[in-house]
Amino acid sequence: MAPQLDGYFKQVDTLSDHFIERLRKAVAIPSVSADEERRPDVVRMGEFLADELSALGAQVEKRPLGKQPGKEHLELPPVVIARYGNDKNKRTILVYGHYDVQPAGKEDGWATEPFELTVDDKGRMYGRGSTDDKGPVLGWLNAIEAHQKAGVDFPVNLLMCFEGMEEYGSEGLDDFIKAEADKYFADADAVCISDNYWLGTEKPCLTYGLRGCSYYSVEVSGPGQDLHSGVFGGTAQEPMTDLVRILGSLVDTHGKIQIPGLAELVAPLTDDEKSLYGNIAFEMSNLYESLGSETSIHPDKEKTLMARWRYPSLSVHGIEGAFSQPGAKTVIPAKVIGKFSIRTVPNMEPEDVDRLVFKYVDEQFKNLGSKNTLNCTLQHAGKWWVASPKHWNFSAAAKAVERVWGVQPDLTREGGSIPVTLTFEQATGKNVLLLPMGSSTDAAHSINEKLDKRNYIEGIKLLGAYLHYVAEEPMSN
Amino acid sequence: MAPQLDGYFKQVDTLSDHFIERLRKAVAIPSVSADEERRPDVVRMGEFLADELSALGAQVEKRPLGKQPGKEHLELPPVVIARYGNDKNKRTILVYGHYDVQPAGKEDGWATEPFELTVDDKGRMYGRGSTDDKGPVLGWLNAIEAHQKAGVDFPVNLLMCFEGMEEYGSEGLDDFIKAEADKYFADADAVCISDNYWLGTEKPCLTYGLRGCSYYSVEVSGPGQDLHSGVFGGTAQEPMTDLVRILGSLVDTHGKIQIPGLAELVAPLTDDEKSLYGNIAFEMSNLYESLGSETSIHPDKEKTLMARWRYPSLSVHGIEGAFSQPGAKTVIPAKVIGKFSIRTVPNMEPEDVDRLVFKYVDEQFKNLGSKNTLNCTLQHAGKWWVASPKHWNFSAAAKAVERVWGVQPDLTREGGSIPVTLTFEQATGKNVLLLPMGSSTDAAHSINEKLDKRNYIEGIKLLGAYLHYVAEEPMSN
Repeated sequence: MAPQLDGYFKQVDTLSDHFIERLRKAVAIPSVSADEERRPDVVRMGEFLADELSALGAQVEKRPLGKQPGKEHLELPPVVIARYGNDKNKRTILVYGHYDVQPAGKEDGWATEPFELTVDDKGRMYGRGSTDDKGPVLGWLNAIEAHQKAGVDFPVNLLMCFEGMEEYGSEGLDDFIKAEADKYFADADAVCISDNYWLGTEKPCLTYGLRGCSYYSVEVSGPGQDLHSGVFGGTAQEPMTDLVRILGSLVDTHGKIQIPGLAELVAPLTDDEKSLYGNIAFEMSNLYESLGSETSIHPDKEKTLMARWRYPSLSVHGIEGAFSQPGAKTVIPAKVIGKFSIRTVPNMEPEDVDRLVFKYVDEQFKNLGSKNTLNCTLQHAGKWWVASPKHWNFSAAAKAVERVWGVQPDLTREGGSIPVTLTFEQATGKNVLLLPMGSSTDAAHSINEKLDKRNYIEGIKLLGAYLHYVAEEPMSN
Repeated sequence: MAPQLDGYFKQVDTLSDHFIERLRKAVAIPSVSADEERRPDVVRMGEFLADELSALGAQVEKRPLGKQPGKEHLELPPVVIARYGNDKNKRTILVYGHYDVQPAGKEDGWATEPFELTVDDKGRMYGRGSTDDKGPVLGWLNAIEAHQKAGVDFPVNLLMCFEGMEEYGSEGLDDFIKAEADKYFADADAVCISDNYWLGTEKPCLTYGLRGCSYYSVEVSGPGQDLHSGVFGGTAQEPMTDLVRILGSLVDTHGKIQIPGLAELVAPLTDDEKSLYGNIAFEMSNLYESLGSETSIHPDKEKTLMARWRYPSLSVHGIEGAFSQPGAKTVIPAKVIGKFSIRTVPNMEPEDVDRLVFKYVDEQFKNLGSKNTLNCTLQHAGKWWVASPKHWNFSAAAKAVERVWGVQPDLTREGGSIPVTLTFEQATGKNVLLLPMGSSTDAAHSINEKLDKRNYIEGIKLLGAYLHYVAEEPMSN
């Protein structure tokens, strides 16, 4: 029979202002994992989480991960792990989230202070990390508190794993998860991760697939120091000239990756799979709204969804070491580092992608006949992941969505990467579910990131409801 | 008969520590004209100069130049003009210099604090602006002071014009010079500018030609905001993809500009001119030393000098709006602005260069078939300049060099641009001489800029000696 959730739902509504305050405190901590100087803030954010969890009666541990690979002067932020409930008669659900965020600065063009949660009259809560991933992480804490204050028995044992390096490749976490799989995480029956987004703005979804991400640096160096372009222009081979040519050879305007052999690694599209895309609640207008423009590659919904979910893409992110400020500087940069990444899909093995990328970049550079020095390296790689949506973990979540939102969720895949998803699946051997809280217009990783108040509050209800349904769902595989 | 200079020279040596202190004070003021936030420091540097000049008994004025074009919230720094001596029986020499500097930060890789003059055991004085152009500007002040303290009559009337926007295209100065040509600068008999460098490290030179510089921005925009490359990679046309392709199409590794029609604008090389290059005191080793590498385009001295002096070059300086920090950020930048500049030579008319550049960039973008928006603009342009080295202004300077350094100077041209040189020539109708103080290894515009103590102190003697010889030199044209 359907679980009794009204008391819990009512309590979530009653506590909504309090829950928003909790998010405000979290957003105020600039836990940017990519920025060395923010590392103390990342650690502070982990402590904030640990303290809140302890106050809710969870058993909390902050596990150190050692030094940051390649930056041994830096200590990695701790993994915050916690257990709430230890009843052998209940299922145990392992949830994961991250408390670090992408870089953000007012100078990037934010309309509000990125680290001050700002709620507008439409209930949009702006702030770095609001939707990625502090809102969802606090969602689990809020669900616990609402159960306590509503006097409703917590339906499962909850294991929590919150990391502080997700936006920088989850440094050090994989080994930790593998090591704890048969220890701290031993009695997990299923895994749930809330760290992605609805496809559109109205219909919730459950996500069973993710693209991987292989992030590369291409360094070109020559002169011993930056040079004056008047004095040396025309007499020195310029690293920037070589780099922009290499970066310009990777992908075309229409998203076609130019690296030979890469397309052959992609799993062929079956008619079966092809037929699924038509039914997904998604319109090109959703894409245009979240793009803020109509500069899309594909004209129709099916091609767009396939391009996002099941085909690779290559993005050039920027150049380190060149002149990047406003104004004019007549400099010849001595060493420039281009950054690009490839989103990978079944059946691309990361090692094969690396091999093809290094070979191609090397050939492109050789073709230039340059005396400069090239160094192409992999910064980090996370593999793609696809799970079985027929598992009870998914059917329970589907019922929870129907209860909270009144609709059947779409079964979707995502273009983004959450490398630990695959690690959890492989290490625990359990089914992993992605249960998003935010919507497609939340602008994660960009300026004016936000989480709608409705998605936050109803999302807290959803996480709680999911735990009730998953506690009752009959076994399956 | 040769002027009596021993007393003056001796006094310069006596005051050398005092002159280095004066340079230290100037370098300590971060007068970066390209950086809005440093504008008050630029103004402060102008005031420092004005105060020093007044203390030496010069009549000083700080002339406002109004608002900065395109940035009307910003006041341009004043032009500091001064007169020292007003004797109708003496020649009047107009000297120009600039008190602003290029951007600089420790994070760029400086070995020392860029705005703290740091003298090493080899007498190299490191600091932003030490050689470009604070050292030479203070050289004129030091020459006045040494004459006073040595009790030597100052041989000419000195008119001085020191600006604060040279590193940002000398905004507003051209109109000022034209307006004052028959007023404040009316009785100038010749012009001398010390704002360039020796060709090598040992032999002084007099410079009679400069390349021009046309600086462009290429803006590509599409999405309304930065995007997550996982969510939108493969579905959105990316401005960076378009921009790196455009920047990659401008010039090749060997310095060959790809813009059709540009080469046809260049004055043909005559056998006469060709024969001059062989005698110039310059070795490829000088180039390698100042490059800090052997990544040169040309294998021999002649081709290298021609490429620097009499052929155009194109340099890509960087990209604004993309990810430029260390680390990894999976962002699709919504708006990126590429910066590149072309060094121009006789007979390239800036308007023709603009026309060809805009046409080519436009065509390259059209060929991409992109839905993004392109906007290519000229940031600033300064025309090339070539003067007559047979003028008495040059012969006087040659004698001064021989007196101070014991060698005949090379007659050289430069690859860099000092746009006001041409303006002074056209506005005053007088001969303009470039009399460099620093050497080829001074690293102007790059990290670890320096001025050798020897070049500074002997350079002060040279500026003073030049004024004595120019006072005596018979008329000529």
